[in-house]
Amino acid sequence: MSQAQHQSHYTQLRALQTEAVRDIVRAGDYSGHTTGLAAGRLQANVVILPEDHAVDFLRFCQRNAKACPLVGVSDRASPMMHTLGADIDIRTDVPSYRIYRNGVVEQEVTDISDLWRDDLVAFALGCSFTFERALMADGIRLHHIERNFTIPMYRTSVPTEPAGPFNGGVVVSMRPIARADVDRTREISARYPFAHGAPIHVGEPHAIGIASLDEPDWGDACAVGDDEVPVFWACGVTPQNAVLNAKPDICITHTPGCMLVTDIDENQEVPVYAGTGR
Amino acid sequence: MSQAQHQSHYTQLRALQTEAVRDIVRAGDYSGHTTGLAAGRLQANVVILPEDHAVDFLRFCQRNAKACPLVGVSDRASPMMHTLGADIDIRTDVPSYRIYRNGVVEQEVTDISDLWRDDLVAFALGCSFTFERALMADGIRLHHIERNFTIPMYRTSVPTEPAGPFNGGVVVSMRPIARADVDRTREISARYPFAHGAPIHVGEPHAIGIASLDEPDWGDACAVGDDEVPVFWACGVTPQNAVLNAKPDICITHTPGCMLVTDIDENQEVPVYAGTGR
Repeated sequence: MSQAQHQSHYTQLRALQTEAVRDIVRAGDYSGHTTGLAAGRLQANVVILPEDHAVDFLRFCQRNAKACPLVGVSDRASPMMHTLGADIDIRTDVPSYRIYRNGVVEQEVTDISDLWRDDLVAFALGCSFTFERALMADGIRLHHIERNFTIPMYRTSVPTEPAGPFNGGVVVSMRPIARADVDRTREISARYPFAHGAPIHVGEPHAIGIASLDEPDWGDACAVGDDEVPVFWACGVTPQNAVLNAKPDICITHTPGCMLVTDIDENQEVPVYAGTGR
Repeated sequence: MSQAQHQSHYTQLRALQTEAVRDIVRAGDYSGHTTGLAAGRLQANVVILPEDHAVDFLRFCQRNAKACPLVGVSDRASPMMHTLGADIDIRTDVPSYRIYRNGVVEQEVTDISDLWRDDLVAFALGCSFTFERALMADGIRLHHIERNFTIPMYRTSVPTEPAGPFNGGVVVSMRPIARADVDRTREISARYPFAHGAPIHVGEPHAIGIASLDEPDWGDACAVGDDEVPVFWACGVTPQNAVLNAKPDICITHTPGCMLVTDIDENQEVPVYAGTGR
């Protein structure tokens, strides 16, 4: 797909309801980023691992809850994320997947049905897109939404709290925020513990081991204006960094920026789908 | 220990710092409730299970995060809760334990060193004691602290979201709150997602399947005054109810009301001990 086609497709998707967005993704007709799509619904990072890594990965999420806020775990031998929506199939409903074998990215695909095995467990982790709507509703400007690009993400020198084979630095997402809006940004995002909560750093990138903002490890670079400050949030790509170290035989994640869109209202106190009757 | 001795002991403990409280508990010299002890530190419900139940129990915690807010998980083959404090040994540092075999309470003990096995995993879940200090700081009166008894806890008809063998109704704790203070109580407790967050019900006990407030399933009954309303929070005893159904060969929990006292500041955004250097 050309850049122009992609842009036009994205603009159409923004007008659609959650189920319609997911149908298009499921059909394999959209593999791009999901910022601003399915407004008001919780979006999630995805990590799929063999069951023998599940307890350690769950320990890792608990110990690094700002980077890895757990919002859903699949049942044994089931690809359906029934606590996140009425009909969410983790094999098809993420726009783009990355396949890691022994800690190395092997390929990017739009469907993992042929790789699914009954011993795989899918984990959904909250995503910073959730608080972006709250920020914008309060008049805080976000470049990447206004200009449709993927937020820049960086490896840092901030360590995670290890669990079993999972360890490595925290990955952050960065948004330039107007100096006058920083306190308000901190307060608003802190209200969303399932979406990384408050920033982990504001200002100087070197202080957290980022050499240059111009060279993100994932996503697109984004200039910081003279009246702006770079604000850094713990990011759900952190597990992808930890997987490089843990080297499980197989791990499948979303492609950074291309999230799972769920049926959960992003303002819900606890992310469990109401349609389950609970 | 007589009631008078217990009362006097409790009063002494209230004056002590966290480490001193834990030393007395570790020595087996206090087996009572921990309300109001180690002011400002996070207290936790405890569930210890064989590793083959760990993934399902972690799923259960994620799906029932208001009842089971996970704040710590032990490492494989280690009884030390190193992410909750400098020196917390889960075999000795809870005032009173309950041993369940195949879903049946067998006995209550003050030390489980002789029962520890390397395949056991200890889970710590946040506790409503955390927001009580915040409520009192705001002038909201709490009978059980003023008069030193264990809060009443009840089984309800509110279902949990099942995971593997774990299921059953949500257990709640109840505090009578002055009618004029209910909204403020809701707002304040909602700020503590790791301590059950906002109440799940206010008012009529029958609406959630409680036949009589005079007959709690755990803890002590507490009269509700004419100017008060019963306020119900999801409670960390919920897993003990689920264990009755799951029937693992062994499960060890705290005795309701007798919590693990951690080194975590109860206002910390994420419950990971700073002493780990992270």
